[in-house]
Amino acid sequence: MKTASPGTKAKICEAAISLFTSQGFRGTTIRQIAQKADVNIALISYHFGGKKGLLEELVMSFYEGYVRRLEVVYHTSTKETARGALMELTEKLLSYQKNNLELARFVHREMTLDSTLIRELMSTYLAKEKYYLNAFFEKGIKRREFKRQSVDLLSVQYKEMIVLPFLQPLYLTEVFHLPVGENVFYRDYQKWINSWIERFVCVPEKKPSILSNVLFGSVQEKWGG
Amino acid sequence: MKTASPGTKAKICEAAISLFTSQGFRGTTIRQIAQKADVNIALISYHFGGKKGLLEELVMSFYEGYVRRLEVVYHTSTKETARGALMELTEKLLSYQKNNLELARFVHREMTLDSTLIRELMSTYLAKEKYYLNAFFEKGIKRREFKRQSVDLLSVQYKEMIVLPFLQPLYLTEVFHLPVGENVFYRDYQKWINSWIERFVCVPEKKPSILSNVLFGSVQEKWGG
Repeated sequence: MKTASPGTKAKICEAAISLFTSQGFRGTTIRQIAQKADVNIALISYHFGGKKGLLEELVMSFYEGYVRRLEVVYHTSTKETARGALMELTEKLLSYQKNNLELARFVHREMTLDSTLIRELMSTYLAKEKYYLNAFFEKGIKRREFKRQSVDLLSVQYKEMIVLPFLQPLYLTEVFHLPVGENVFYRDYQKWINSWIERFVCVPEKKPSILSNVLFGSVQEKWGG
Repeated sequence: MKTASPGTKAKICEAAISLFTSQGFRGTTIRQIAQKADVNIALISYHFGGKKGLLEELVMSFYEGYVRRLEVVYHTSTKETARGALMELTEKLLSYQKNNLELARFVHREMTLDSTLIRELMSTYLAKEKYYLNAFFEKGIKRREFKRQSVDLLSVQYKEMIVLPFLQPLYLTEVFHLPVGENVFYRDYQKWINSWIERFVCVPEKKPSILSNVLFGSVQEKWGG
């Protein structure tokens, strides 16, 4: 019998993501995962307690990393402005998902289903996501950088844009002819979200006079302050 | 052998939608559909040429009705304003999906997958959807009712909001505590989209003077004109 090595869990996860993505969760057996990962089937039960446990672990590990990025940018961004911090967040969330592409696609799709597990994960991770997104927008509104409006609406729209290339990649390739998955795509897509931030979220910039820059330019609090 | 009646196709479709939704397309057999619809299995092949044909028919019939609403409102709305026509469209698209709830949920989820069939459907129906949405926004911009901005961005955001309660109902119930599926939900959700139209899409209204109302009130072209 093959024994657990530090890489075993990772190998099992990788095999599971790939099979769940191509065959669906229901269409995949524990045996197929063991075969693809080249591990003994008993190790999957040992590490994850079965197929459902494996799914839970995958979704949780995705959202742990996702929510951590929200927390980190919110609490430690060194950007001067709310606008800058939100753009930094966009870059972080897109590149996190890009670096975990198959997992991101699988998790977002899985979250469109209805089950007790999904409901639990929703009320844990997506509630945290909403909490931080609302906090970003509220802070920007308080600083008078963002227009006063429903933060729930802003959070939903922002979240949908962040998730779109992973939940509905074909929609962007077939209908908008965007090269989803290529590096150039992420750069352009980020610009797209930034243009949304500039136009929909921010108070239109008044060209500041040199005098007001001198007088008020340096008193503005930093984001992280 | 049971023979085809006018209701047979409808019965088969209904059974298929329900099984595809609960068990997934891959997890459903033709035999199960025949059993649930209480028809002879041969009739499914006769009417649809098999499971894949049935899926195609379901998705196509959903989008035929969906796109028809876009066309009809675009060409025949009697609203005075682009804003009014867009709000009418919102009402029509939400109630169409609400009246075909299981089908709408199934189709939107199916469209997140990747297959040759899905790609074809994308480049037919969702390209048409984009064409009409862009046309709505372009017309509003041309009439100076809508702010000048990327119509692609507007179309994507509008479409995502229209689809959200059907693609990600749990997200709205578990995270935003909205009573998705109840009548009161659709009314409130429509108000939410309307507030997006007012704030994000429309040029902020200047309070017109009585004089300008008298002078210009009646010359404005109607939407359908």
